[in-house]
Amino acid sequence: MEFSVFSDEHYMKLAYQQAQLALDSGEVPVGAVVVCGQTIVAKAYNQTETLQDVTAHAEILAITAAANYLGAKYLHECTLFVTLEPCIMCAGAIFWSQLNRLVYGASDPAKGYSNFSSNRQQHSNKKNTTLLHPRTEVVSGLMAAECGKIVEDFFRELRN
Amino acid sequence: MEFSVFSDEHYMKLAYQQAQLALDSGEVPVGAVVVCGQTIVAKAYNQTETLQDVTAHAEILAITAAANYLGAKYLHECTLFVTLEPCIMCAGAIFWSQLNRLVYGASDPAKGYSNFSSNRQQHSNKKNTTLLHPRTEVVSGLMAAECGKIVEDFFRELRN
Repeated sequence: MEFSVFSDEHYMKLAYQQAQLALDSGEVPVGAVVVCGQTIVAKAYNQTETLQDVTAHAEILAITAAANYLGAKYLHECTLFVTLEPCIMCAGAIFWSQLNRLVYGASDPAKGYSNFSSNRQQHSNKKNTTLLHPRTEVVSGLMAAECGKIVEDFFRELRN
Repeated sequence: MEFSVFSDEHYMKLAYQQAQLALDSGEVPVGAVVVCGQTIVAKAYNQTETLQDVTAHAEILAITAAANYLGAKYLHECTLFVTLEPCIMCAGAIFWSQLNRLVYGASDPAKGYSNFSSNRQQHSNKKNTTLLHPRTEVVSGLMAAECGKIVEDFFRELRN
């Protein structure tokens, strides 16, 4: 496959660069980029320590910045690239934004949104819906190894 | 029961006043107050339309403001009063804040966090945990009628 500057890989690399900036600031290294058409409308990285604000995850900051850039709260035409599977807070924000497409890197078996679901379908045979909006297409696992490793390395170092 | 200015009812009335301010701005009327000891450290109301930002729910704004006031991201000693049951985005933020106590008014059968749970416990006999932190005590139903009515009236008016 030919490399394109408009490929998912390209944008995920930019999200990964954001994660590296988070790492440089002593933050859990998660980065995000929002793309609308072929325009990057937001870049952000986790800043919970810097801002002393638990809501300052990369996705929340990127969604707020993208809406600000676009002058509209819905991200119907946008793709959010994020290095780590969103938590439920961020999945909730993604739901409300009616995002077109979510592309994430590494899964988060502890805090990722896919570990949660609506209670209403627990006793049916239907597949549990995720916490996201039905209109949001999801792609997972892009650059999963790198995106997971930077977080694992961060926590390993923290423990030592 | 004697009325106290430090009672849950008192603080929920202040949260309700915030919801009325939201209504005055054409927002879905939800209000929140964060109390630490006997000090009000944050007041906020839903501003998603005004700010064109889906993350600007009353709880998110209140948590950010409280952390800013306290200079610390954890709200271990705080109670959040909010007129409507938090959505999963806000429940996630409350989880991350390690809030001591959540007091909410009306339930939200459509979008409230209690409609969701961890997948891990679906097939066990244990009670499903909520999406909140285990250290967070929850009180629901305080001024539920008023807190629910202001939202219902808002949506009824919107439809007409």
